[in-house]
Amino acid sequence: MIKLAIDAMGGDNAPSEIVKGVNLAVKEFDDVEFTLFGDEEQIKKYLVPSNRVKIVHAPEALSMGEKDPIRTIRTNKELSLVKAFQAVHDKECDGVVTAGPTQGVIVAAHMIIRRIPGMQRVALCPAMPVVGGKSRLVLDVGANTDIRPEHMLQHAQFASVYVSKTRGIEKPLVGLLNIGTEPGKGRELEKEAFALFEKCESINFYGNVEPKELFTTPCDIIITDGYSGNICIKSVEGTAKAVGIILKEEIGKSFFSKIGYLFMRKTFKNFKYRMSGAEVGGALVFGVDGIVTKSHGSSEAMDFKFAIAQARKAVKGEVVEMMKTYLSLEEQNNEWRI
Amino acid sequence: MIKLAIDAMGGDNAPSEIVKGVNLAVKEFDDVEFTLFGDEEQIKKYLVPSNRVKIVHAPEALSMGEKDPIRTIRTNKELSLVKAFQAVHDKECDGVVTAGPTQGVIVAAHMIIRRIPGMQRVALCPAMPVVGGKSRLVLDVGANTDIRPEHMLQHAQFASVYVSKTRGIEKPLVGLLNIGTEPGKGRELEKEAFALFEKCESINFYGNVEPKELFTTPCDIIITDGYSGNICIKSVEGTAKAVGIILKEEIGKSFFSKIGYLFMRKTFKNFKYRMSGAEVGGALVFGVDGIVTKSHGSSEAMDFKFAIAQARKAVKGEVVEMMKTYLSLEEQNNEWRI
Repeated sequence: MIKLAIDAMGGDNAPSEIVKGVNLAVKEFDDVEFTLFGDEEQIKKYLVPSNRVKIVHAPEALSMGEKDPIRTIRTNKELSLVKAFQAVHDKECDGVVTAGPTQGVIVAAHMIIRRIPGMQRVALCPAMPVVGGKSRLVLDVGANTDIRPEHMLQHAQFASVYVSKTRGIEKPLVGLLNIGTEPGKGRELEKEAFALFEKCESINFYGNVEPKELFTTPCDIIITDGYSGNICIKSVEGTAKAVGIILKEEIGKSFFSKIGYLFMRKTFKNFKYRMSGAEVGGALVFGVDGIVTKSHGSSEAMDFKFAIAQARKAVKGEVVEMMKTYLSLEEQNNEWRI
Repeated sequence: MIKLAIDAMGGDNAPSEIVKGVNLAVKEFDDVEFTLFGDEEQIKKYLVPSNRVKIVHAPEALSMGEKDPIRTIRTNKELSLVKAFQAVHDKECDGVVTAGPTQGVIVAAHMIIRRIPGMQRVALCPAMPVVGGKSRLVLDVGANTDIRPEHMLQHAQFASVYVSKTRGIEKPLVGLLNIGTEPGKGRELEKEAFALFEKCESINFYGNVEPKELFTTPCDIIITDGYSGNICIKSVEGTAKAVGIILKEEIGKSFFSKIGYLFMRKTFKNFKYRMSGAEVGGALVFGVDGIVTKSHGSSEAMDFKFAIAQARKAVKGEVVEMMKTYLSLEEQNNEWRI
C-alpha cells in the first residue's frame, strides 16, 4: 500500500476541494491509503468515508500570503502542513500532497523532511503544459537563487530518475536552458554546467535549449538555476495572461468573431485549462527524503486528484530510493559519474 | 529633415520587402530623407523614385546565420550593414534601420557607431506586444550577459528619456524585473539595483515586477540584465508558439470548433500579428551615439515601415542628445543622480 499525507487545509479552496479531490482518488486508486491533516469537523462535511482514509486533527492552516514561512513553520507545530510533512519525515507516509503556498512547501520540505544525504540542493519542478503530446520538466524554478553547476548536475540526475521511473522513458533527454544553442553560450554558470553535463554518463545530455523552444524541444528535462527558471515560468504565465486579454480584445472587435466564439466556447475553456498545466499534476520538490507534490493554490478537486496521481506514481517508481542509491554509490566512488 | 540610413540587404526578405517598406514610409512621412545601402540594381526593381531617397551601392549582406559577426564586421567594409552604420557614425545620417541579425546589429552599433561618452553599456530593447492599450519596454534582453547595478540604472535613465520623448509620458514608471514583488527579493544584483533605483531622482521607480505581470504591470519600462531579459522574452516567444499549437490541437478536436474557426479566421490572424509585437516597431539599441532600430528578421514591408516610424520618432525626440546632456551633467556633478 502507498501511503500519502494530505494537507487538507492548504490552498484557496481548502478543505472542500481538497477533500473532494481525495474522494476522487480513493475511487480511482485502490493501492493508496490517505491520511488527511486538517480540521476534522470540516473535513467530515465533504469526505466520503472509506477504510483507506483517516483524519488527523490539525485545524490551523499556513496562510497563502505568509510572509515569513521559515519562522511560522519552525514555531507552529499545529499547522496541517507541518503535521503532514512530519508524517513523511517519520516514515508514516511515503509522500505528501498540498496546495499550500510554494515558499512554505519548499521550507517545510527542507526543514521537516530534510534533504537526502549527498543531495546538495533541493529543486522546485513545476507542471508544464502538454504540447505536441509531450510534457517537459523544468527545474529549478525557485528553490535556489544562487546555484553551482554541480548542483544543476544533481538536479539533472534526479529528474532523469524521476522521468524514467514515472513515464517509462528509458534515457530521458536533458537540455540546459540558455540564451543560445551553441556550446559556449551564456554566463560562466551555463558554460561550466555544459562541460559537466557533457562528461556525465548518468544523464542523456542534449545540449543548450533556448526558451523559445520550451514547448517544442525534444528534451524531457530542462535544467536551469532557480532565478532564471523562475523568470522563465513566470514569463510563460504572463504571456498566457496576455493571450487571454488580447484574444478577448480581438473577439470584441467583430460581430463574426463573436459568433465564432459561441461555437468555440468549450475549445477556449479547454485551451485555458491546458495552458495552466493543471492536467499534468503539481510542482514537485526534488531532493528531499520523500515525495513532495504541490498542487496549485487555486486547485479544484480534479486538479488535486491529478497531483495525487503524480505523487502515487513517484512513490511507486521508488524515485527517492533510486536517487539515494545513486548518491551513496557516488560517495563510494567519486568517479562513477564523470 | 530627418536622415535615416537603411540597410536594404538585411533580413530574410531583403531587399524587396525592405524597399517596399521604405516606399510606404516616403509616402507617410514627408520629413524624412532615406539613404538605402544595398545592391543598386536590385533596389531599383522595387523602389518608387523620390527626391528624398538615394541609393549607395553595397551589394554584400551580412548573413542571417553569421557565426562570427565581430570578425566579419571588422574585416568586410563592403557590407550594406557596415556602410549604413558608418553613415550614422559619420553624422551623415541620424539613425539606421535594419532587419539584419541581432548580434550583428549590436556588434555594429558598438564597433562602428560607438557608445555615448559616459554610457557604460549598451542595451537591447525589443518591441513587446501591446496589451490593454499599453506597450512596455523591456531591457536589456541580450547585449550583456553580465552586468552591474549601475549599468542597469543607466539603462533605466536612457529608457525613461526615450519613453518621455517618443510617447509623451512625462515620468515613465520604471520596474525592476524580479522573482518576487517585495523589496529584498532576488539575487545580489537585484537587491543592489533596487537600492540604487530607489535613491535615484531622475527615474520614477515603481519597484519589483514579476514576469507574470509583464503585460499587465502599470510600468512603462522594465529593467533587467541581458541574460534574464533574454530568457524572459524568449519564454514569451516559446509560449506564443505553444499557444498556436494548443489552439490548433483544440480546434481540430471538435466539429463546432472548426465552424467557429471559420468565423474567427481574421481574429486569429490579428491575434497572431499582435502577439508578434510587430506593430510596435523594432528592437532598439540604446547607448550608442545615434538611433539604431532593428526590425525583425522576417520583416515584411509593413513591419519595416513601423520600424522606420519608430526610428523617426526617436530622432525627432532628440533622445540621444538628451541622454548626452544627462551624462555630461553627471560627469560634472557626480551627485546629481543620487
